[in-house]
Amino acid sequence: MSILIAVKGWNPDHWIHALKAQAPDRQVVLASEAFDRDAIRYALVWKPEPGLLKSLPNLQVIFSLGAGVDHLTTDPQLPDLPVVRIVDPDLTQRMTEWVLLQVLMHHRQHFHYAAAQAAGQWRARRQWGAADVRVGVMGLGVLGLDAIRALKALGFQLRGWSRTPKVIEGVQTWAGDEGLAPFLAATDILVSLLPLTAETTGLIDARLIDGLAKDGPLGGPVLINAGRGRSQVEGDVNAALRDGRLKGASLDVFAVEPLPHDSPLWTAPNLIITPHVAAESDPVALSAYVLSQIAGHEAGAGLANLVDRKLGY
Amino acid sequence: MSILIAVKGWNPDHWIHALKAQAPDRQVVLASEAFDRDAIRYALVWKPEPGLLKSLPNLQVIFSLGAGVDHLTTDPQLPDLPVVRIVDPDLTQRMTEWVLLQVLMHHRQHFHYAAAQAAGQWRARRQWGAADVRVGVMGLGVLGLDAIRALKALGFQLRGWSRTPKVIEGVQTWAGDEGLAPFLAATDILVSLLPLTAETTGLIDARLIDGLAKDGPLGGPVLINAGRGRSQVEGDVNAALRDGRLKGASLDVFAVEPLPHDSPLWTAPNLIITPHVAAESDPVALSAYVLSQIAGHEAGAGLANLVDRKLGY
Repeated sequence: MSILIAVKGWNPDHWIHALKAQAPDRQVVLASEAFDRDAIRYALVWKPEPGLLKSLPNLQVIFSLGAGVDHLTTDPQLPDLPVVRIVDPDLTQRMTEWVLLQVLMHHRQHFHYAAAQAAGQWRARRQWGAADVRVGVMGLGVLGLDAIRALKALGFQLRGWSRTPKVIEGVQTWAGDEGLAPFLAATDILVSLLPLTAETTGLIDARLIDGLAKDGPLGGPVLINAGRGRSQVEGDVNAALRDGRLKGASLDVFAVEPLPHDSPLWTAPNLIITPHVAAESDPVALSAYVLSQIAGHEAGAGLANLVDRKLGY
Repeated sequence: MSILIAVKGWNPDHWIHALKAQAPDRQVVLASEAFDRDAIRYALVWKPEPGLLKSLPNLQVIFSLGAGVDHLTTDPQLPDLPVVRIVDPDLTQRMTEWVLLQVLMHHRQHFHYAAAQAAGQWRARRQWGAADVRVGVMGLGVLGLDAIRALKALGFQLRGWSRTPKVIEGVQTWAGDEGLAPFLAATDILVSLLPLTAETTGLIDARLIDGLAKDGPLGGPVLINAGRGRSQVEGDVNAALRDGRLKGASLDVFAVEPLPHDSPLWTAPNLIITPHVAAESDPVALSAYVLSQIAGHEAGAGLANLVDRKLGY
């Protein structure tokens, strides 16, 4: 009943430590070391080597160690086993913090005041109210709904868009291809929390940017993306920031990570870049989540937060 | 039954426009122009000329056009008339936005990520949770309580300090001189929303800064002041930022405003300066507030949010 950890680009020590502290009786092994393939029942993975999971004959459940699962579902040899997504209150709360921070920085004219301060100048500007600003959230899953809850409490007008229709109290929502244009036209600050799927790849392009509301109080639309980097066409985002079609942007995710040092985005105006840290996975909180799911599975209670392979999330 | 507007350093046009739009039958006059002193019943003031209010024989109520009233109570010739403070949901909401933004910028390591971005470098850092951070609010009036409500919803630990004891659900509170040291020792991020009184003048000095918690997750204490500038000893704040006793600070208010161009604060490290814009008075919302108070007064229902001259707020 061993647990395998297969993570790429992360230090697995924290995970081993957290799992062993919470489940001292389980064997926890690392994919980068020698291990008994037959013993593995559960795999905790982030960007695992293609074919690795297929090579485990007694594997029962795959846990994806992040909110998105595109790192996994793109493996053509992914075995036909349940894939469990991370849905953790701690991760959700961190994402909401990041989204709130970015919305408030643009809303409260951070770039203006930072430039004034750097010049040693006292330059007050008229400030519109939150009720004057329409924040549109794309992706109305757990993360999107929690961001909406927090933004609503601050008095922003909320809009929502998702693949399938959703009803959210106090939020005007649209769905699908035909709902995209009216949603964008009613949005001053666009927040994308979309998973990466065939439909969302390259969705945030020049056409989408040009469809955002232009008459809002910020003086132009703002893009905030903490979903997946490949949802955005980075050349289009860069161009729109430089010619003013975007008033500002905040990006935590990029098509290639780390963002290459020669990317023009590093010097694009009115852009806030964070290095994929909006919602870090906390090994202690997430190990508890994984172990409680395993306990439920072994007791015959089933698994929660299963990924729909067809939808890709 | 005329209304006098006497504001210094503001453009009064918005106020005249807002008042006339909402009360077309009232006469609204400007202190900077000729007017009939006998006709004035109500005065809307911000830093009025000393002696002006005393020269109005039929004045009944003074409205202070801001959350603080120190600009008014320092007039030695202030007549013995009711002074009404602005308590406006719009102003409160703007202040809460500003406080949240500043807390989140320090909590989410803004200075680190801004420096990394400026250098074109992808430098992720470990992020602690909101539940690991103790935010201490000084001043538990309308503004302080609303900031606490919003910060609690994000999962921060809350502490409170005020002149007289207050009980707030889920918040550990202290009061008075003897409560200050234990409050500070339990605070990682200090938020001051204090009014300016004899007791609060110069309160935020080196001794207070050195009393803040040093063992928090941010790596040192943070000061946020949106109360009044003269509550802080600016030389002490500057020195503490430069030698690292303060990990960071956000100041919206200063002893002298505009902050002089040669102030060393402009170049202090890890400091965010905004030019007294945390909570701007909105003429439309505040004119409605003033007119509803006048209507209540004339109907014999009395006045709300009266200033206690002895306390100074």
